[in-house]
Formats: sequence, structure tokens, C-alpha cells
Amino acid sequence: MIIIGEKINGTRRRVAQAIVERDHEFIKDLARKQAEGGAHYLDVNAGTSPDREPEDMVWLIENIQEVVDLPLCLDSANPAALESGLQVVKRPALINSLSGEKARIEGVLPLAGKYQTGLVVLALDDLTGIPKRSEERLEIVSKLVGLAEEQGLSHEQLFIDPLVTAISTGVDSGMVTFETIKGIRQRYPAAHITCGLSNISFGLPLRSLINRTFLAMCMMCGLDSAIIDPNDRELMGVLLAAEMLLGRDAYCRGFLGAYRAGRIGPPTK
Amino acid sequence: MIIIGEKINGTRRRVAQAIVERDHEFIKDLARKQAEGGAHYLDVNAGTSPDREPEDMVWLIENIQEVVDLPLCLDSANPAALESGLQVVKRPALINSLSGEKARIEGVLPLAGKYQTGLVVLALDDLTGIPKRSEERLEIVSKLVGLAEEQGLSHEQLFIDPLVTAISTGVDSGMVTFETIKGIRQRYPAAHITCGLSNISFGLPLRSLINRTFLAMCMMCGLDSAIIDPNDRELMGVLLAAEMLLGRDAYCRGFLGAYRAGRIGPPTK
Repeated sequence: MIIIGEKINGTRRRVAQAIVERDHEFIKDLARKQAEGGAHYLDVNAGTSPDREPEDMVWLIENIQEVVDLPLCLDSANPAALESGLQVVKRPALINSLSGEKARIEGVLPLAGKYQTGLVVLALDDLTGIPKRSEERLEIVSKLVGLAEEQGLSHEQLFIDPLVTAISTGVDSGMVTFETIKGIRQRYPAAHITCGLSNISFGLPLRSLINRTFLAMCMMCGLDSAIIDPNDRELMGVLLAAEMLLGRDAYCRGFLGAYRAGRIGPPTK
Repeated sequence: MIIIGEKINGTRRRVAQAIVERDHEFIKDLARKQAEGGAHYLDVNAGTSPDREPEDMVWLIENIQEVVDLPLCLDSANPAALESGLQVVKRPALINSLSGEKARIEGVLPLAGKYQTGLVVLALDDLTGIPKRSEERLEIVSKLVGLAEEQGLSHEQLFIDPLVTAISTGVDSGMVTFETIKGIRQRYPAAHITCGLSNISFGLPLRSLINRTFLAMCMMCGLDSAIIDPNDRELMGVLLAAEMLLGRDAYCRGFLGAYRAGRIGPPTK
């Protein structure tokens, strides 16, 4: 599983505050902890203020890169912020994200081509928003994969997001995501499939239980990446258990290593 | 999900003691609690002492039937114990279990035919024990389903067990069970698929975490029954979440009902 650490996100109040106050220790701490938790990429979202975003993105990236060696996932719909960020990243980056929306196709996609980045691809567009049926999501994905190919991106560079909607508002929400994941895996065996989880449990109690159960089931369908908090012990426990159960953890090394390092299981203190 | 409550099992020390001492309150309490926890069947295993087993089985069944109205799953390899039990059950029972072993085919299968019971079918035989590959497990299942059909049993009466071996002793153990479940679901869409979970985590730490992650993944593959402890709050939380995520819990009623009744989620005290 490719873990994209979600915590450096300027739409969260505490992170927004750290950005405004240039509290670099707070940001560096989030970066370090996520790396220690097992993240493979760190998502970097500088917030949504268009005039500040390019500068804030650069500030975030420079601070993160001072303390961790991970590739970054630049999370913005703003081409200026993305390009500013792409000019300072030390390692090949991911862009989060392309969708079927006109503004993203025109503004984000060319940057992925120009910098040959990885690219998160969302199964939504201007016409329908998030389609209710997996067939429609797959159609959008198919179109976007074609556009990415035209920019010289390989399937290995794509992180396709099947999208997740609340089970409380539609009994089929889980199944639509499962079917979309299976469809993507079948059509694009070399592509990565990623998503956030928490929308699934919106409006319900025991959200983390629902989210982590959903993660295991999505992995069974072919999900091989997730945008999560790598310091969530319970979620990481399920992730590593599922990885092991899928036959990808010889001698249970990853699971046992995380257990012995105290990263999963009941907190020791 | 059809939940078969596993707790009344004479191979467990405390239950064995209750059987020997004729401690009917202990047994009745196990029966009541499992019914309250959401069990649909109660497994009844009277232990393995051949001369006592028929009498103990009858004693167990009579006590259980005094307090709960659930159908029972008579768990024995001993035809005399099974037949004694079948003569006193008030509701259509399940027999646990038929396998490809000669003694079971000769001793257990005819009883399922004579009493037209449901039947747990294990994917193992004398020749190979538990086969390492799912193809071989499916071959055994196929043979046993044929024999059950000859006894007049419908596929709906069968609870096919794909079998579970330890992930610590074989990196593919999980995948073999997953593939076997998928194969059974494809070949016998009307049959039930059930299993115990705990073998998967033998020899590892955080066993309940592994077991419940495995449950969600098995359900994704087509498992529609499990032999479990219905009073395990964490396991039942995953089971009900998975059921909901699979689109089988309209308006999240089952999940929310269990939450409000205090059956899942953090203990209230």
C-alpha cells in the first residue's frame, strides 16, 4: 500500500493557523510524524486563498523538505500554486488532482505533462459531479486516462480515485466505490488506485470503525493506495493486517515490525 | 450475515466443566447472551468423550431450548451424539459437519438426509487434509455438494466452509481462503458460505485485529455466515459495518440499532 499522509492540509484550522503564523516547527513536526508512521508521500495543501496559495505552498514544501526525504503530493486546484510548488520539490511529485472539470483539464493536466509528475485522477466532471453509478465513473476515468496518456504519462504514474460518498445518504454508496475500484483494476492493471475514506461514514456514529472496515474491503477490491492519517494506530493496524492477508507481507514482517515498533496495537503508555 | 454463536463448545475448559457438573445456569446464560448479541444459530458441541457425548448433547440442547428460541447447530463427528440431538431439537437444525473424510460421509451425511437438516460442509478430506490450493478445496466441495444433493438437500441448506489456515505459516493462507470463497459463491450462488476466523491469526500478536480485518475481507468475497462470538463488540462492529457497506442495511438500521442498543462501539461503562 502506498500511503499518502493527509495531515498537512490548510483547510484544517490548526494547519491554516500554522501557515499564517509561519509556525515552521508545527509543520515540520507533522511531516516527521507522518514519515515515522509509514507515509510514502505527504499531501501538501496550502489552503484555498488564491493570492497567498503559491507562496504558502512553497513555504510548506521548503519546510517539509528540510526534515523528511519523502516525495510530496501537491494538493491544489490552482495552477499557479502547483507550478510554484513543482519548481521547488526535490523529488518527483504527485499532483492532486485532475478531474473531468474543464478548469482542471486546462489548468492542471498540462502541468503534469510539463513536469512529468504522478497524477491523482478523480472520477467526477462538470456535467454530473460525482456520478451515482460506477459505469459513469469509469467512463470519466477512461477519458481522463486518455488525456493523461496524451501528456506522456504512463499508467504507473496515475493514482485513480474512485470517489467515496456517504453510506448514510445512499445504501449503495459502498458498492459503487467497490465496483469502481474493481473496474479500474481490471482496465488499468498498472495504475494505482487511491482514495480518502472518511466520506463513507459521514453522518454516522463510530466513524473510524466504519472507515477502517471500508479500507479493508476496498483493498480486497484492488485499492493499493490511500490518503490517510498514518499516525492513526487503529487504521494502520487494519491496513497492515489487510496487506498481510492479501499475501503481500512475507513472514508477516511488515505487520510484526510495526507491532514491535509500537506503531499498531493498543498504545503502550 | 447468518451468525452462528460459537460459545457453547465442550472443548473449552469452562464449558466442559459446566457440562460435567450439570451447571445448567452457566449454559443457559451463554445461550441467552449469544441470542441477545444477535446470533441466528447456536453451535452446540458437547465435547469429545464418545460414551458421554450423546447424553451430554441432549442435556445441552434441552437446557438451551428452555431459554432461547434459536435453531441449533449440532457440532460433532459422532453420529450417535448427532442423532440423539436431532431427536430433541425443536427447530430445523444444522449439522456441523460433513467433510470428505470417509467416516463423515458414512456417519454424518445420512443423518442430514434422514432429518433433512442444514449441513456445514468442510473443504477437506482424508487424502490431503486441508488442501493448500483453492482449486483442490473447490474439488472437494464439488464432490460433497453432489453427495448432499443425493440426500435431497438443496444448496440453500448448505453452509460451505472454505477453511482457514494460519497466515503465519503461509503467506498465501488468506488468499487461498478468499479465492475459495469466490469460487464457491460463483459455483453455488444459493449456498451459504461460513467459517471460523481465528485460525488465520494463530501465532501472531493482535489476533482479534487480524480476525476482524479478515472477516470484512471474506465478506467482500461472498462469505454470508460466520461461526463467531456474537458478544465480541469489536468483531460485531466490523460485521455490521461491512454488512452496511455491502449495501444490505437500508437506512443503516442494523448498524444504528446495534449502536443505540450498546452492542457495538466502546463499552458504556
